[in-house]
Amino acid sequence: MHWVHETVSDGVVERQFELQGGSRPVPGLLWVPAEAVGPRPLLLLGHGASGTKREGYLVALARRMVRRHGFAAAAIDGPVHGDRRSDLGSNPVLTFLEFSQAWTTDPAMTDAMVADWRSTIDELEKLDEVGSGPVGYWGLSMGTILGLPLVAAEPRIAAAVLGLMGMTGPTRERIAADAPRVRCPVLFLLQWDDELFARDSSIELFGALGSSDKRLHAQPGRHGEVPSEEFEASDRFLTRHLTD
Amino acid sequence: MHWVHETVSDGVVERQFELQGGSRPVPGLLWVPAEAVGPRPLLLLGHGASGTKREGYLVALARRMVRRHGFAAAAIDGPVHGDRRSDLGSNPVLTFLEFSQAWTTDPAMTDAMVADWRSTIDELEKLDEVGSGPVGYWGLSMGTILGLPLVAAEPRIAAAVLGLMGMTGPTRERIAADAPRVRCPVLFLLQWDDELFARDSSIELFGALGSSDKRLHAQPGRHGEVPSEEFEASDRFLTRHLTD
Repeated sequence: MHWVHETVSDGVVERQFELQGGSRPVPGLLWVPAEAVGPRPLLLLGHGASGTKREGYLVALARRMVRRHGFAAAAIDGPVHGDRRSDLGSNPVLTFLEFSQAWTTDPAMTDAMVADWRSTIDELEKLDEVGSGPVGYWGLSMGTILGLPLVAAEPRIAAAVLGLMGMTGPTRERIAADAPRVRCPVLFLLQWDDELFARDSSIELFGALGSSDKRLHAQPGRHGEVPSEEFEASDRFLTRHLTD
Repeated sequence: MHWVHETVSDGVVERQFELQGGSRPVPGLLWVPAEAVGPRPLLLLGHGASGTKREGYLVALARRMVRRHGFAAAAIDGPVHGDRRSDLGSNPVLTFLEFSQAWTTDPAMTDAMVADWRSTIDELEKLDEVGSGPVGYWGLSMGTILGLPLVAAEPRIAAAVLGLMGMTGPTRERIAADAPRVRCPVLFLLQWDDELFARDSSIELFGALGSSDKRLHAQPGRHGEVPSEEFEASDRFLTRHLTD
Protein backbone atom coordinates (compact mmCIF):
# COMPACT_ATOMS: atom_id res chain seq x y z
CA MET A 1 0.00 0.00 0.00
CA HIS A 2 1.53 3.26 -1.12
CA TRP A 3 0.00 6.39 0.38
CA VAL A 4 0.19 9.19 -2.19
CA HIS A 5 -1.50 12.15 -0.58
CA GLU A 6 -3.66 13.15 2.38
CA THR A 7 -6.06 16.02 2.99
CA VAL A 8 -8.34 16.80 5.95
CA SER A 9 -11.52 18.88 5.83
CA ASP A 10 -14.61 19.10 8.04
CA GLY A 11 -13.43 16.23 10.19
CA VAL A 12 -12.87 13.85 7.26
CA VAL A 13 -9.44 12.56 6.26
CA GLU A 14 -9.08 11.69 2.56
CA ARG A 15 -6.09 9.53 1.72
CA GLN A 16 -5.10 8.73 -1.86
CA PHE A 17 -3.43 5.35 -2.23
CA GLU A 18 -1.96 3.03 -4.78
CA LEU A 19 -2.27 -0.59 -3.86
CA GLN A 20 0.63 -2.71 -5.09
CA GLY A 21 1.55 -6.35 -4.87
CA GLY A 22 -1.52 -7.77 -6.58
CA SER A 23 -1.69 -8.50 -10.30
CA ARG A 24 -1.65 -4.77 -11.09
CA PRO A 25 -1.56 -1.43 -9.26
CA VAL A 26 -4.92 -0.22 -7.97
CA PRO A 27 -5.47 3.56 -7.54
CA GLY A 28 -7.87 4.45 -4.77
CA LEU A 29 -9.12 6.83 -2.11
CA LEU A 30 -9.86 6.16 1.55
CA TRP A 31 -12.01 8.38 3.75
CA VAL A 32 -12.01 8.02 7.53
CA PRO A 33 -12.99 10.25 10.43
CA ALA A 34 -10.17 12.51 11.62
CA GLU A 35 -8.37 10.92 14.57
CA ALA A 36 -10.29 7.65 14.08
CA VAL A 37 -9.19 4.79 16.31
CA GLY A 38 -10.31 1.17 16.07
CA PRO A 39 -12.53 -0.85 13.73
CA ARG A 40 -15.58 0.52 11.93
CA PRO A 41 -17.83 -0.38 8.97
CA LEU A 42 -16.13 0.00 5.58
CA LEU A 43 -18.20 1.15 2.60
CA LEU A 44 -16.81 0.38 -0.87
CA LEU A 45 -17.93 2.77 -3.61
CA GLY A 46 -17.93 1.76 -7.29
CA HIS A 47 -18.26 4.61 -9.80
CA GLY A 48 -20.13 4.54 -13.12
CA ALA A 49 -18.68 4.27 -16.62
CA SER A 50 -16.72 7.35 -17.79
CA GLY A 51 -16.31 8.55 -14.19
CA THR A 52 -13.53 8.18 -11.64
CA LYS A 53 -13.11 7.43 -7.94
CA ARG A 54 -13.50 11.21 -7.42
CA GLU A 55 -17.05 11.50 -8.83
CA GLY A 56 -18.99 14.12 -6.89
CA TYR A 57 -21.80 11.75 -5.86
CA LEU A 58 -19.28 9.16 -4.56
CA VAL A 59 -17.26 11.68 -2.58
CA ALA A 60 -20.45 13.19 -1.14
CA LEU A 61 -21.78 9.79 -0.06
CA ALA A 62 -18.39 8.77 1.36
CA ARG A 63 -18.09 11.98 3.40
CA ARG A 64 -21.71 11.68 4.56
CA MET A 65 -21.19 8.16 5.89
CA VAL A 66 -17.90 9.13 7.56
CA ARG A 67 -19.26 12.29 9.20
CA ARG A 68 -22.68 11.01 10.23
CA HIS A 69 -21.96 7.42 11.13
CA GLY A 70 -18.20 7.14 11.63
CA PHE A 71 -17.79 4.75 8.68
CA ALA A 72 -14.65 4.29 6.63
CA ALA A 73 -15.24 4.54 2.86
CA ALA A 74 -13.09 3.64 -0.12
CA ALA A 75 -13.30 4.05 -3.89
CA ILE A 76 -11.00 2.65 -6.58
CA ASP A 77 -10.84 3.52 -10.26
CA GLY A 78 -12.63 1.12 -12.58
CA PRO A 79 -10.84 -0.68 -15.42
CA VAL A 80 -9.61 1.75 -18.10
CA HIS A 81 -10.77 4.58 -15.83
CA GLY A 82 -9.22 7.39 -13.79
CA ASP A 83 -5.61 7.07 -12.73
CA ARG A 84 -5.32 3.79 -14.64
CA ARG A 85 -5.25 5.95 -17.80
CA SER A 86 -2.46 8.14 -19.14
CA ASP A 87 -5.03 10.96 -19.45
CA LEU A 88 -6.09 10.32 -15.78
CA GLY A 89 -9.75 10.16 -16.86
CA SER A 90 -9.84 13.68 -18.25
CA ASN A 91 -11.64 12.50 -21.41
CA PRO A 92 -14.94 10.90 -20.31
CA VAL A 93 -16.18 10.14 -23.82
CA LEU A 94 -13.01 8.30 -24.80
CA THR A 95 -13.09 6.48 -21.44
CA PHE A 96 -16.69 5.44 -22.05
CA LEU A 97 -15.81 4.17 -25.53
CA GLU A 98 -12.87 2.15 -24.25
CA PHE A 99 -14.89 0.73 -21.38
CA SER A 100 -17.68 -0.40 -23.68
CA GLN A 101 -15.08 -2.07 -25.90
CA ALA A 102 -13.40 -3.78 -22.94
CA TRP A 103 -16.81 -4.89 -21.62
CA THR A 104 -17.45 -6.52 -25.00
CA THR A 105 -14.06 -8.06 -25.74
CA ASP A 106 -12.26 -8.70 -22.43
CA PRO A 107 -13.87 -11.52 -20.44
CA ALA A 108 -11.19 -11.14 -17.74
CA MET A 109 -12.15 -7.53 -16.99
CA THR A 110 -14.74 -8.47 -14.36
CA ASP A 111 -12.48 -10.94 -12.57
CA ALA A 112 -9.61 -8.45 -12.50
CA MET A 113 -11.84 -5.78 -10.93
CA VAL A 114 -13.20 -8.25 -8.37
CA ALA A 115 -9.60 -9.15 -7.49
CA ASP A 116 -8.71 -5.45 -7.16
CA TRP A 117 -11.57 -4.89 -4.75
CA ARG A 118 -10.70 -7.96 -2.69
CA SER A 119 -7.07 -6.86 -2.42
CA THR A 120 -8.31 -3.43 -1.38
CA ILE A 121 -10.40 -4.93 1.43
CA ASP A 122 -7.44 -7.09 2.50
CA GLU A 123 -5.13 -4.09 2.76
CA LEU A 124 -7.58 -1.65 4.33
CA GLU A 125 -8.57 -4.16 6.99
CA LYS A 126 -4.97 -4.05 8.21
CA LEU A 127 -5.37 -0.41 9.22
CA ASP A 128 -6.21 0.13 12.88
CA GLU A 129 -8.81 2.79 11.93
CA VAL A 130 -10.63 0.38 9.56
CA GLY A 131 -10.11 -3.11 10.98
CA SER A 132 -12.27 -6.10 10.17
CA GLY A 133 -15.66 -4.49 10.69
CA PRO A 134 -18.61 -5.18 8.38
CA VAL A 135 -18.17 -4.24 4.72
CA GLY A 136 -20.80 -2.66 2.45
CA TYR A 137 -20.82 -2.02 -1.28
CA TRP A 138 -22.51 0.83 -3.17
CA GLY A 139 -22.27 0.97 -6.97
CA LEU A 140 -24.70 1.75 -9.79
CA SER A 141 -24.50 1.13 -13.53
CA MET A 142 -20.84 0.10 -14.16
CA GLY A 143 -20.64 -0.02 -10.39
CA THR A 144 -23.15 -2.89 -10.61
CA ILE A 145 -21.76 -4.48 -13.79
CA LEU A 146 -18.47 -4.97 -11.93
CA GLY A 147 -19.79 -4.82 -8.37
CA LEU A 148 -22.50 -7.47 -8.47
CA PRO A 149 -19.89 -10.18 -9.20
CA LEU A 150 -17.86 -8.82 -6.27
CA VAL A 151 -20.85 -8.96 -3.91
CA ALA A 152 -21.59 -12.49 -5.13
CA ALA A 153 -18.01 -13.62 -4.51
CA GLU A 154 -17.08 -11.82 -1.31
CA PRO A 155 -18.59 -13.07 1.95
CA ARG A 156 -17.22 -10.08 3.86
CA ILE A 157 -19.78 -7.85 2.10
CA ALA A 158 -22.81 -7.70 4.38
CA ALA A 159 -25.06 -5.26 2.47
CA ALA A 160 -25.09 -3.77 -1.03
CA VAL A 161 -26.74 -0.96 -2.96
CA LEU A 162 -26.92 -1.88 -6.66
CA GLY A 163 -28.92 -0.80 -9.69
CA LEU A 164 -29.17 1.27 -12.88
CA MET A 165 -28.35 -1.96 -14.69
CA GLY A 166 -30.24 -4.90 -16.12
CA MET A 167 -29.94 -8.50 -17.15
CA THR A 168 -28.35 -7.44 -20.41
CA GLY A 169 -25.10 -6.48 -22.11
CA PRO A 170 -21.93 -8.40 -23.06
CA THR A 171 -21.55 -9.94 -19.59
CA ARG A 172 -25.23 -10.95 -19.32
CA GLU A 173 -24.35 -14.61 -18.70
CA ARG A 174 -21.91 -13.72 -15.94
CA ILE A 175 -24.49 -11.47 -14.30
CA ALA A 176 -27.19 -14.15 -14.64
CA ALA A 177 -24.89 -16.66 -12.95
CA ASP A 178 -23.82 -14.31 -10.16
CA ALA A 179 -27.17 -12.70 -9.31
CA PRO A 180 -28.54 -15.76 -7.44
CA ARG A 181 -25.25 -15.92 -5.50
CA VAL A 182 -25.89 -12.50 -4.00
CA ARG A 183 -27.24 -13.36 -0.55
CA CYS A 184 -26.75 -10.24 1.53
CA PRO A 185 -29.44 -7.55 1.98
CA VAL A 186 -29.72 -5.43 -1.18
CA LEU A 187 -31.25 -2.07 -2.06
CA PHE A 188 -31.71 -2.01 -5.86
CA LEU A 189 -32.30 1.32 -7.62
CA LEU A 190 -34.10 1.65 -10.93
CA GLN A 191 -34.68 4.79 -12.98
CA TRP A 192 -38.08 4.48 -14.66
CA ASP A 193 -36.96 6.32 -17.82
CA ASP A 194 -33.46 4.82 -18.02
CA GLU A 195 -32.26 5.35 -21.57
CA LEU A 196 -29.35 2.88 -21.25
CA PHE A 197 -30.93 -0.15 -19.58
CA ALA A 198 -34.42 -1.37 -20.51
CA ARG A 199 -36.82 -1.29 -17.57
CA ASP A 200 -37.81 -4.93 -18.01
CA SER A 201 -34.20 -6.10 -17.92
CA SER A 202 -33.60 -4.19 -14.68
CA ILE A 203 -36.72 -5.67 -13.11
CA GLU A 204 -35.52 -9.10 -14.25
CA LEU A 205 -32.15 -8.54 -12.58
CA PHE A 206 -33.78 -7.49 -9.30
CA GLY A 207 -35.92 -10.62 -9.44
CA ALA A 208 -32.87 -12.81 -9.99
CA LEU A 209 -30.97 -11.60 -6.92
CA GLY A 210 -30.63 -14.45 -4.44
CA SER A 211 -31.12 -12.26 -1.37
CA SER A 212 -34.27 -12.93 0.62
CA ASP A 213 -33.89 -9.43 2.09
CA LYS A 214 -34.03 -7.07 -0.90
CA ARG A 215 -36.02 -4.05 -2.00
CA LEU A 216 -36.45 -2.28 -5.34
CA HIS A 217 -36.84 1.50 -5.37
CA ALA A 218 -37.93 2.98 -8.71
CA GLN A 219 -38.37 6.64 -9.52
CA PRO A 220 -39.08 8.63 -12.69
CA GLY A 221 -36.07 10.01 -14.50
CA ARG A 222 -33.25 9.11 -16.83
CA HIS A 223 -30.15 7.04 -16.09
CA GLY A 224 -28.18 9.87 -14.53
CA GLU A 225 -31.03 11.42 -12.57
CA VAL A 226 -31.05 9.40 -9.32
CA PRO A 227 -32.81 11.68 -6.81
CA SER A 228 -31.32 12.72 -3.48
CA GLU A 229 -34.07 10.66 -1.79
CA GLU A 230 -32.23 7.50 -2.87
CA PHE A 231 -28.93 8.67 -1.40
CA GLU A 232 -30.84 9.16 1.86
CA ALA A 233 -32.33 5.68 1.42
CA SER A 234 -28.82 4.31 0.78
CA ASP A 235 -27.60 5.94 4.00
CA ARG A 236 -30.45 4.45 6.03
CA PHE A 237 -30.12 1.01 4.42
CA LEU A 238 -26.35 0.78 4.88
CA THR A 239 -26.45 2.14 8.40
CA ARG A 240 -29.18 -0.29 9.38
CA HIS A 241 -27.30 -3.30 8.05
CA LEU A 242 -23.71 -2.40 8.90
CA THR A 243 -24.05 -1.01 12.41
CA ASP A 244 -25.37 -2.66 15.55
CA MET B 1 -71.68 14.09 12.47
CA HIS B 2 -72.73 11.80 15.28
CA TRP B 3 -70.01 10.97 17.80
CA VAL B 4 -70.58 7.45 19.10
CA HIS B 5 -67.74 6.78 21.51
CA GLU B 6 -64.41 8.16 22.66
CA THR B 7 -61.35 6.56 24.25
CA VAL B 8 -57.97 8.02 25.20
CA SER B 9 -54.72 6.09 25.57
CA ASP B 10 -51.05 7.04 25.41
CA GLY B 11 -51.88 10.59 24.43
CA VAL B 12 -54.11 9.61 21.51
CA VAL B 13 -57.85 10.28 21.43
CA GLU B 14 -59.87 7.81 19.34
CA ARG B 15 -63.38 8.97 18.45
CA GLN B 16 -65.87 6.71 16.71
CA PHE B 17 -68.30 8.62 14.51
CA GLU B 18 -71.17 8.10 12.14
CA LEU B 19 -71.38 10.72 9.45
CA GLN B 20 -74.93 11.51 8.39
CA GLY B 21 -76.50 13.83 5.90
CA GLY B 22 -74.82 12.49 2.77
CA SER B 23 -76.36 9.82 0.57
CA ARG B 24 -75.83 7.19 3.31
CA PRO B 25 -74.40 6.93 6.81
CA VAL B 26 -70.61 6.57 6.98
CA PRO B 27 -69.07 4.78 9.99
CA GLY B 28 -65.59 5.99 10.89
CA LEU B 29 -62.86 6.59 13.43
CA LEU B 30 -60.88 9.76 14.10
CA TRP B 31 -57.58 9.87 15.96
CA VAL B 32 -56.13 13.14 17.24
CA PRO B 33 -53.56 14.07 19.87
CA ALA B 34 -55.06 14.50 23.34
CA GLU B 35 -55.82 18.15 23.99
CA ALA B 36 -55.09 19.06 20.36
CA VAL B 37 -55.83 22.66 19.39
CA GLY B 38 -55.77 24.14 15.89
CA PRO B 39 -55.26 22.77 12.38
CA ARG B 40 -52.97 19.88 11.52
CA PRO B 41 -52.37 17.41 8.65
CA LEU B 42 -55.17 14.87 8.24
CA LEU B 43 -54.29 11.35 7.10
CA LEU B 44 -57.09 9.25 5.59
CA LEU B 45 -56.65 5.48 5.94
CA GLY B 46 -58.36 3.03 3.59
CA HIS B 47 -58.43 -0.60 4.72
CA GLY B 48 -58.12 -3.69 2.52
CA ALA B 49 -60.89 -6.06 1.43
CA SER B 50 -62.36 -8.21 4.23
CA GLY B 51 -60.99 -5.83 6.88
CA THR B 52 -62.50 -2.92 8.77
CA LYS B 53 -61.57 0.59 9.88
CA ARG B 54 -60.13 -1.07 13.00
CA GLU B 55 -57.49 -3.20 11.22
CA GLY B 56 -54.38 -3.46 13.37
CA TYR B 57 -52.04 -2.02 10.74
CA LEU B 58 -54.33 0.99 10.20
CA VAL B 59 -54.73 1.73 13.88
CA ALA B 60 -50.96 1.36 14.41
CA LEU B 61 -50.16 3.75 11.56
CA ALA B 62 -52.81 6.23 12.70
CA ARG B 63 -51.50 6.26 16.28
CA ARG B 64 -47.91 6.51 15.06
CA MET B 65 -48.64 9.61 12.96
CA VAL B 66 -50.64 11.19 15.77
CA ARG B 67 -48.05 10.54 18.46
CA ARG B 68 -44.90 11.26 16.46
CA HIS B 69 -46.04 14.08 14.21
CA GLY B 70 -49.23 15.53 15.71
CA PHE B 71 -51.33 14.46 12.72
CA ALA B 72 -55.03 13.77 12.76
CA ALA B 73 -55.98 10.44 11.15
CA ALA B 74 -59.30 8.98 10.05
CA ALA B 75 -60.55 5.65 8.72
CA ILE B 76 -63.99 4.74 7.41
CA ASP B 77 -65.42 1.33 6.66
CA GLY B 78 -65.34 0.32 2.99
CA PRO B 79 -68.49 -0.63 1.09
CA VAL B 80 -70.09 -3.83 2.44
CA HIS B 81 -67.47 -3.76 5.24
CA GLY B 82 -67.36 -3.21 8.99
CA ASP B 83 -70.20 -1.36 10.65
CA ARG B 84 -72.02 -1.11 7.31
CA ARG B 85 -72.83 -4.81 7.77
CA SER B 86 -75.33 -6.41 10.10
CA ASP B 87 -72.54 -8.77 11.22
CA LEU B 88 -70.27 -5.71 11.81
CA GLY B 89 -67.51 -7.34 9.74
CA SER B 90 -67.17 -10.36 12.00
CA ASN B 91 -67.10 -12.72 8.98
CA PRO B 92 -64.10 -11.73 6.81
CA VAL B 93 -64.61 -14.48 4.21
CA LEU B 94 -68.24 -13.56 3.59
CA THR B 95 -67.25 -9.87 3.48
CA PHE B 96 -64.56 -10.66 0.93
CA LEU B 97 -67.05 -12.59 -1.19
CA GLU B 98 -69.60 -9.81 -1.10
CA PHE B 99 -66.99 -7.18 -1.89
CA SER B 100 -65.73 -9.10 -4.91
CA GLN B 101 -69.31 -9.41 -6.13
CA ALA B 102 -70.00 -5.71 -5.61
CA TRP B 103 -66.71 -4.83 -7.35
CA THR B 104 -67.88 -6.87 -10.33
CA THR B 105 -71.53 -5.86 -10.53
CA ASP B 106 -71.95 -2.41 -8.95
CA PRO B 107 -70.37 0.34 -11.05
CA ALA B 108 -71.56 2.97 -8.55
CA MET B 109 -69.58 1.43 -5.67
CA THR B 110 -66.44 3.47 -6.39
CA ASP B 111 -68.30 6.76 -6.73
CA ALA B 112 -70.21 6.15 -3.52
CA MET B 113 -67.00 5.49 -1.60
CA VAL B 114 -65.33 8.57 -3.09
CA ALA B 115 -68.37 10.61 -2.00
CA ASP B 116 -68.16 9.10 1.51
CA TRP B 117 -64.51 10.12 1.80
CA ARG B 118 -65.17 13.63 0.52
CA SER B 119 -68.02 14.10 3.01
CA THR B 120 -65.70 12.83 5.72
CA ILE B 121 -63.05 15.42 4.83
CA ASP B 122 -65.75 18.13 4.71
CA GLU B 123 -66.97 17.28 8.20
CA LEU B 124 -63.59 16.70 9.83
CA GLU B 125 -62.24 19.97 8.49
CA LYS B 126 -64.90 21.75 10.55
CA LEU B 127 -63.29 20.54 13.77
CA ASP B 128 -60.94 23.05 15.39
CA GLU B 129 -58.40 20.27 16.11
CA VAL B 130 -58.32 19.18 12.43
CA GLY B 131 -59.04 22.31 10.37
CA SER B 132 -58.15 22.73 6.72
CA GLY B 133 -54.57 21.53 6.89
CA PRO B 134 -53.05 19.32 4.17
CA VAL B 135 -54.71 15.93 3.60
CA GLY B 136 -52.93 12.67 2.86
CA TYR B 137 -54.27 9.27 1.83
CA TRP B 138 -52.89 5.81 2.67
CA GLY B 139 -54.61 2.72 1.30
CA LEU B 140 -53.39 -0.55 -0.22
CA SER B 141 -55.23 -3.23 -2.18
CA MET B 142 -58.96 -2.36 -1.81
CA GLY B 143 -57.65 0.85 -0.26
CA THR B 144 -56.18 1.60 -3.70
CA ILE B 145 -59.07 0.18 -5.76
CA LEU B 146 -61.34 2.71 -4.05
CA GLY B 147 -58.72 5.24 -2.98
CA LEU B 148 -56.95 5.92 -6.27
CA PRO B 149 -60.20 7.37 -7.73
CA LEU B 150 -60.50 9.51 -4.58
CA VAL B 151 -56.94 10.81 -4.92
CA ALA B 152 -57.58 11.53 -8.61
CA ALA B 153 -60.77 13.47 -7.83
CA GLU B 154 -59.89 15.31 -4.64
CA PRO B 155 -57.52 18.29 -4.91
CA ARG B 156 -57.25 18.58 -1.12
CA ILE B 157 -55.19 15.36 -1.08
CA ALA B 158 -51.55 16.43 -1.24
CA ALA B 159 -49.76 13.06 -0.97
CA ALA B 160 -50.80 9.42 -1.23
CA VAL B 161 -49.46 5.96 -0.42
CA LEU B 162 -51.01 3.40 -2.77
CA GLY B 163 -50.23 -0.10 -3.98
CA LEU B 164 -50.81 -3.86 -3.71
CA MET B 165 -53.03 -3.41 -6.77
CA GLY B 166 -52.61 -3.45 -10.51
CA MET B 167 -54.15 -2.32 -13.75
CA THR B 168 -56.62 -5.16 -13.60
CA GLY B 169 -59.97 -6.28 -12.22
CA PRO B 170 -63.58 -5.33 -12.89
CA THR B 171 -62.88 -1.59 -12.54
CA ARG B 172 -59.78 -1.69 -14.74
CA GLU B 173 -61.16 0.96 -17.10
CA ARG B 174 -61.98 3.30 -14.24
CA ILE B 175 -58.50 2.85 -12.78
CA ALA B 176 -56.89 3.37 -16.19
CA ALA B 177 -58.82 6.62 -16.61
CA ASP B 178 -58.10 7.89 -13.10
CA ALA B 179 -54.41 6.94 -12.78
CA PRO B 180 -53.16 9.77 -15.05
CA ARG B 181 -55.30 12.21 -13.04
CA VAL B 182 -53.33 11.45 -9.88
CA ARG B 183 -50.95 14.42 -9.71
CA CYS B 184 -49.81 14.55 -6.10
CA PRO B 185 -46.63 12.86 -4.82
CA VAL B 186 -47.15 9.10 -4.51
CA LEU B 187 -45.38 6.24 -2.77
CA PHE B 188 -46.51 3.01 -4.48
CA LEU B 189 -45.91 -0.34 -2.74
CA LEU B 190 -45.57 -3.63 -4.58
CA GLN B 191 -45.16 -7.10 -3.12
CA TRP B 192 -42.92 -9.10 -5.46
CA ASP B 193 -44.75 -12.37 -4.83
CA ASP B 194 -48.28 -10.94 -4.70
CA GLU B 195 -50.67 -13.82 -5.27
CA LEU B 196 -53.68 -11.56 -5.96
CA PHE B 197 -52.31 -8.96 -8.38
CA ALA B 198 -49.89 -9.89 -11.17
CA ARG B 199 -46.56 -8.09 -10.86
CA ASP B 200 -46.70 -6.74 -14.40
CA SER B 201 -50.14 -5.21 -13.85
CA SER B 202 -48.91 -3.45 -10.70
CA ILE B 203 -45.86 -2.11 -12.52
CA GLU B 204 -48.18 -0.93 -15.30
CA LEU B 205 -50.34 0.91 -12.78
CA PHE B 206 -47.34 2.65 -11.22
CA GLY B 207 -46.24 3.71 -14.69
CA ALA B 208 -49.67 5.14 -15.48
CA LEU B 209 -49.83 7.42 -12.43
CA GLY B 210 -49.79 11.04 -13.60
CA SER B 211 -47.59 12.26 -10.72
CA SER B 212 -44.17 13.50 -11.73
CA ASP B 213 -43.09 12.91 -8.11
CA LYS B 214 -43.62 9.21 -7.48
CA ARG B 215 -41.60 6.24 -6.31
CA LEU B 216 -42.15 2.47 -6.42
CA HIS B 217 -40.94 0.33 -3.51
CA ALA B 218 -40.98 -3.42 -4.16
CA GLN B 219 -40.07 -6.14 -1.70
CA PRO B 220 -40.26 -9.92 -1.68
CA GLY B 221 -43.33 -11.40 -0.10
CA ARG B 222 -46.96 -12.20 -0.65
CA HIS B 223 -49.91 -9.80 -0.75
CA GLY B 224 -50.35 -9.53 2.98
CA GLU B 225 -46.66 -9.44 3.92
CA VAL B 226 -45.80 -5.73 3.61
CA PRO B 227 -42.70 -5.31 5.81
CA SER B 228 -42.42 -2.80 8.64
CA GLU B 229 -39.80 -0.99 6.56
CA GLU B 230 -42.59 0.26 4.28
CA PHE B 231 -44.63 1.59 7.18
CA GLU B 232 -41.53 3.55 8.16
CA ALA B 233 -41.20 4.70 4.53
CA SER B 234 -44.88 5.72 4.59
CA ASP B 235 -44.27 7.75 7.75
CA ARG B 236 -41.29 9.55 6.20
CA PHE B 237 -43.02 10.14 2.88
CA LEU B 238 -46.23 11.51 4.42
CA THR B 239 -44.40 13.64 6.95
CA ARG B 240 -42.16 15.09 4.25
CA HIS B 241 -45.07 16.04 2.02
CA LEU B 242 -47.68 17.08 4.58
CA THR B 243 -45.64 19.12 7.03
CA ASP B 244 -43.60 22.27 6.44
